[in-house]
Order: sequence, then C-alpha cells, then structure tokens
Amino acid sequence: MKKFAEKTISSQEIYSGKVVHLQVDDVILPNGKQAKREIINHPGAVAIIPITKDNKIVMVEQYRKPLEKSLLEIPAGKLEPGEVPETTAIRELEEETGYTTNELSLVTSFYTSPGFANELIYIYITDQLERVDEPAEGDDDEFIEIVEVTLDEAKQYVEEERIHDSKTNYAILYLHALGMN
Amino acid sequence: MKKFAEKTISSQEIYSGKVVHLQVDDVILPNGKQAKREIINHPGAVAIIPITKDNKIVMVEQYRKPLEKSLLEIPAGKLEPGEVPETTAIRELEEETGYTTNELSLVTSFYTSPGFANELIYIYITDQLERVDEPAEGDDDEFIEIVEVTLDEAKQYVEEERIHDSKTNYAILYLHALGMN
Repeated sequence: MKKFAEKTISSQEIYSGKVVHLQVDDVILPNGKQAKREIINHPGAVAIIPITKDNKIVMVEQYRKPLEKSLLEIPAGKLEPGEVPETTAIRELEEETGYTTNELSLVTSFYTSPGFANELIYIYITDQLERVDEPAEGDDDEFIEIVEVTLDEAKQYVEEERIHDSKTNYAILYLHALGMN
Repeated sequence: MKKFAEKTISSQEIYSGKVVHLQVDDVILPNGKQAKREIINHPGAVAIIPITKDNKIVMVEQYRKPLEKSLLEIPAGKLEPGEVPETTAIRELEEETGYTTNELSLVTSFYTSPGFANELIYIYITDQLERVDEPAEGDDDEFIEIVEVTLDEAKQYVEEERIHDSKTNYAILYLHALGMN
C-alpha cells in the first residue's frame, strides 16, 4: 500500500549507535509541501512465549534504562544482520532462559511504533521446551532474572504494570484468548 | 521495581526534533562495568478503539515513512506537554475521524519498545460516538483516510499485514477476546 506516499528529497544520518540509528529525511508531501521525517532504523526483533510442561510462562525481568525501572517481559532480542527470525528466537530463548526448542509457531508480527521507528517484532510461541545443560551466554551488559509465572499471575502483573510492554501485554491477552489456564 | 538498576554517570543530548529526542547515557552496570544506553525520549501517546452504532471499527489509513508504506491503524496521537491522556484521545479522535465522545474506557497501556524508547501508549475504547459538524483539523503534514471495518474485515487485514502495528494488532485481539462480532 503506497497511499499518500511521501517522496524523499534528501536523507541525513544523525547518529549510528549500538541499537539506535537515527536519520532525518526531507520529504515532499502529497500536497506538494515539504516536511521532515525523523526515523529510527532498527534491525527488527523477535520475542518468544515459552510455555513449560506445567503450564507456566517463562519470563525475564530486566532493567530498562529508558524507563528507569525493571519490567517482566517475555524473552526477546534483536535480529543480527541477515539472520532469519526463527534463528534469533532460538538463540535468545537459550541465552535468556536456558531452554531450547525445535518447535516454534508464529503468533503474529507487528511494528512497535510505526510513527517514528521501523522496528518489526515477530512473536513466537512454543510449549516444547528442553533444558540446555550449558546454555550460551547473552550480551555482557544484560542482567536478567528468570521468572516462571502462571497466566493468572501474569494478568495480575499486567494490572500492577510490572508487565507493561507491547509484546508481553499482547502475549498475555493472546494466552487469555486461547483459553489457557 | 529497581532490580539491576543502572546508575547514570553522564547523559548527552544527541538530537532534539519534532518527534524524536535522542540521548546517550553512560551508565554503571550491576557488575561495576560501564556501558552506553541509547534512549529515545518520547512524550507518550494515546490510541482509541472507536466502535460505531452499527458495530464497525473506525480506522485511519496513513503513510508511515519509516516503513515506506501505508498502514491501517486505530486513531492515535502524541500527548502535548502536560496534557492528560483522555484529552489527547478526544482531540485525536475528532481530528482524525470527525467523531467525538464523552465516554472513554481505558483498555490497557504499554511501553511500545522499552529497550530503546520510553514511549508509553494508552489505549481507550468507546462505543458512544457522535459526529462533529465542523471537526478540528489535524497537523498539516498528516494525510489520512477514514475506513470503517467489521471485526472480520480487520482480522483479514491483520493476515494481509495491512494492519500491522502494536496498538492496532492489540486492539483487534482485544475485540476478538471480548466476543465482538
């Protein structure tokens, strides 16, 4: 769909960091006027809803510097260049939870904030988890704690805003809609 | 929750634009090492799920420059400084759809992408819509088309990825879970 497409006149890279790549484009609007568009370029991400054999959701708690607080989230991570999302999902699952799987189902995908960022996140689910004896370690600037919760506990955490991000709120609503208990 | 809190040593503003405000912080990690955190500061946002008397969802189609395509989304907009979310919701509803309401219920709120941005979005729902005779106009760089769809049509658009963003995918799943038809 290209309705109301905006033609790029020029594009300037403002910042290229570890996660955030910011560019500002000058564009021509459908009415012929000019405007600036600020764009965060992001490699994309995956998240996994891991369900244990005793019907708990494996979640991770971590500090989120932009919010200056920690959140409880489903495991997730950024795509490496050229990586297919399933590979990222299995890698992040192992690094963050110590579990692996050979069975992933895609639940949905969505742009997290299409007004200013092109981050696309894929959400997978699995109830086929196996413990890894010596799991690969994640980034050395990531500090996480694994928490296994029932769906009722997760709903309570949503109320308390301890769970409070798009992928995890979606996941909890999805499990509710599925009739998990 | 402050688990694994990261202490800020210094904070540098990299860019301050119309939508995106980028800062890079040097922090001390829980293990005493240093790291950089790239943070998009965002004023927050609201979205509304407007349901008409004949049980359709009022949506807007607009071009999203970061994706280089248009999406069909529920109406939404950014908070102005000091504005309470309900005020933003009613303003954006009128500007984008020509409807108003005096009855909004909060569905949920979530951070769209807590790894790098502090954007918090509030999602409201209303089935009490009134037409505004001469609705206020929105930003002069916004070009939108109003589309009223059934829930079944919306689910089809999710499949086709014409609906493909966190707030709108959440809204459709929410209406499905509610048993709307």
